[in-house]
Amino acid sequence: MKKTILIHATVITVNDKNEVIHDGAVAFEGDKITYVGPTPEDLTDAGYDEVIDQKGDFILPGLINTHGHAGMSLLRGYADDLPLQQWLEEKMWPLEAQFTADSVKWGTQLSLIEMIRTGTTTFVDMYDHMDEVAKAVEASGMRARLCRGMIGLCSEEERQTKLADATAFAKEWHNQADGRITVMMAPHAPYTCSPEFITQIIEKADELSLPLHIHMSETAWEVGQNEKDYGLRPVAHLEKLGMFNRPTLVAHAVHLTDEEIDILAKYKVRVSHNVVSNLKLASGVAPVPKMLAKGVSVSLGTDSSASNNNLNLFEELKLAAILHKGVNNDPVAVPAEEALRMATRYGADGVFQSDTLGSIEVGKQADLIVLDSHQAHFHPAHEPISHVVYAANGRDVKDTIVAGKFLMRNHKLLTIDEERAIYEANRMFQKLKR
Amino acid sequence: MKKTILIHATVITVNDKNEVIHDGAVAFEGDKITYVGPTPEDLTDAGYDEVIDQKGDFILPGLINTHGHAGMSLLRGYADDLPLQQWLEEKMWPLEAQFTADSVKWGTQLSLIEMIRTGTTTFVDMYDHMDEVAKAVEASGMRARLCRGMIGLCSEEERQTKLADATAFAKEWHNQADGRITVMMAPHAPYTCSPEFITQIIEKADELSLPLHIHMSETAWEVGQNEKDYGLRPVAHLEKLGMFNRPTLVAHAVHLTDEEIDILAKYKVRVSHNVVSNLKLASGVAPVPKMLAKGVSVSLGTDSSASNNNLNLFEELKLAAILHKGVNNDPVAVPAEEALRMATRYGADGVFQSDTLGSIEVGKQADLIVLDSHQAHFHPAHEPISHVVYAANGRDVKDTIVAGKFLMRNHKLLTIDEERAIYEANRMFQKLKR
Ligand SMILES: [Zn+2]
Ligand SMILES: [Zn+2]
Repeated sequence: MKKTILIHATVITVNDKNEVIHDGAVAFEGDKITYVGPTPEDLTDAGYDEVIDQKGDFILPGLINTHGHAGMSLLRGYADDLPLQQWLEEKMWPLEAQFTADSVKWGTQLSLIEMIRTGTTTFVDMYDHMDEVAKAVEASGMRARLCRGMIGLCSEEERQTKLADATAFAKEWHNQADGRITVMMAPHAPYTCSPEFITQIIEKADELSLPLHIHMSETAWEVGQNEKDYGLRPVAHLEKLGMFNRPTLVAHAVHLTDEEIDILAKYKVRVSHNVVSNLKLASGVAPVPKMLAKGVSVSLGTDSSASNNNLNLFEELKLAAILHKGVNNDPVAVPAEEALRMATRYGADGVFQSDTLGSIEVGKQADLIVLDSHQAHFHPAHEPISHVVYAANGRDVKDTIVAGKFLMRNHKLLTIDEERAIYEANRMFQKLKR
Repeated sequence: MKKTILIHATVITVNDKNEVIHDGAVAFEGDKITYVGPTPEDLTDAGYDEVIDQKGDFILPGLINTHGHAGMSLLRGYADDLPLQQWLEEKMWPLEAQFTADSVKWGTQLSLIEMIRTGTTTFVDMYDHMDEVAKAVEASGMRARLCRGMIGLCSEEERQTKLADATAFAKEWHNQADGRITVMMAPHAPYTCSPEFITQIIEKADELSLPLHIHMSETAWEVGQNEKDYGLRPVAHLEKLGMFNRPTLVAHAVHLTDEEIDILAKYKVRVSHNVVSNLKLASGVAPVPKMLAKGVSVSLGTDSSASNNNLNLFEELKLAAILHKGVNNDPVAVPAEEALRMATRYGADGVFQSDTLGSIEVGKQADLIVLDSHQAHFHPAHEPISHVVYAANGRDVKDTIVAGKFLMRNHKLLTIDEERAIYEANRMFQKLKR
């Protein structure tokens, strides 16, 4: 197996001690990290196949995007500035109903390009035509936790087809692509799935030993609707259905009472905080400092490009660090170090892979990103974590490495034909009746 | 004079009709725009010295950053995550007290690099050692509205020295550098300047026929202090001192009552909205939709890199568009088009130059930026204004043109030695006792 070492870097490990190593090095062999520490004095007998001098660049764990719908990049910029339900029901769903496997294929390619270019190495995807997504992930070298999203607003027959589809997808793709692809089972949301349907999905997840992923408490409307329909707010409703007895990742969690946060903490429910999407769709601001204080693992998600409108997780990283200060009148809420953990370690937790992802440590997967530190906005050169959280930009990422393989090097994509993807995505979008 | 035309571009004019011209062209001769319209069929006899094919790239008016302290980029990343007063009084001011002309010179160079690279063509600066700032602006080719900021927390003698300094600076630099440099008179804030000192500054501005610039109502603490000291909230206090009888640009305006907004509208006081800085310092969220609804001209400012921590105005642009939706539960608050006006037209208004800046129109200054549209996050190719506001990134800017002169072309800076500036800024920072 090829042995590579990156030397003379500022290594932001995001390990338990939050170590930053100046003039540091990271080595990997195959897909695993084999060394993290100071740049070795002498490498002549170390047997590395490739030695890369980073000249002070920042090395970080690859970012983890814990909620999204990659295929929806095809709808970027379509019908902005509308309320969530109207946007979903009148704009998104009618266009998505026309989506073919090819639409999802090329929408996903756009998303993969964006994510690799801006330093995301693992992403969660909940969508349809998931075979296309899995194939694109496999070919691109990315890492993903994929789910066939199930909206239950259809006939019983269609619901069962969706569940069978999700089950077949899980059986075919879980732990495939050298382990880079894993799967979850995903009822879309409590307001789009009946209790019976959610129960069936939980049972199937149990049978397949898979975690669950769901949208929850994104809007005040949705919470009210849940109370009207079931006499319970979404958290108690899902708890009652037994969802939280299985490992669960919920997206959004904007509208929560203190009691609901306690329940999420008790069951170790993971939360994906989609800060840009929640603001843009006017859903509100999730109580992130409260969740973090109670020990809930909160990671970052972009949601789709249709409500963001990009997949640059560095935007979520900075916004998670500054928004909660501003709206809670608390200048120490979500400090830079904690925001960075949300984008990395807590993200690894969100995809149930904290033993192999989320920090730069020996034995973990070599999912690494390199940021070009030779730019005005990273100077004066001190406080690298502050610079990465508050001053950086996704486009500072020059190299993206997943499982020890370069997917981007010196800003050049190595596994995706960018020009073709852009061309085909436009062709697919033009086919849709608007 | 050299005649240049940019052809085959998507021209986002931000004119009165908010026109977007597909396959459009912009021509300029010297520092003025001479043509805006469809790409001409035939250019053989048009007499252009240079014809540049933009191949579908976006051309926008240069962005206008209406509040900042360029020299403070030297303190980027120093003492993050503290409350405003403590951060100012215990961290910023003691270090700034050690600033020499050279500190400001090189801190400003860092800022100019960042701004040119991310598409800002005009900026407001309120600081000390303003001769250095003016010289740097002149040499860089940028456009700026500069003010010697006056903090009155010192002896009467020092106050008079500052006022004399500000006056001399205005006389020397107003309308210099081919008109690219203009000046304002700037009492720092109502809580750092006595009513008497503010009155003296207003009288001097009157004598010099210059607008005024001041920090106002940034924090709740400051508003309370004003009421304690003078029995009035800041807006009524400054109104009583006669400040608003002169053209005035206020920075922040976070804590405002409806009555105060009415007063700002009545006197046509311009507001610089510093959305990132206000969140990061936990100052709060300015009532921007209310101000806009009442006809107050609200533009965008970064404040300094010490509280941001960069000068990438595209961050303010997107955040201004999404934040007010999210916190006001209003998905149509500050639509993309309005946010773009804040960064351009309203910015021109903020620097009192709306007749020459802020939109792409014949006769206006050729302050233009070109964004590389050949990137995944700008596709599918439709709704260019949405893409520029919601999906773009300051680093998409490939060319920055001020007064008809390229300051950056194809991502290469043409007027600043970037490597030297980074080196010297680090050297200056290292000299400071922390
Ligand atoms: Zn979603
Ligand atoms: Zn300021």
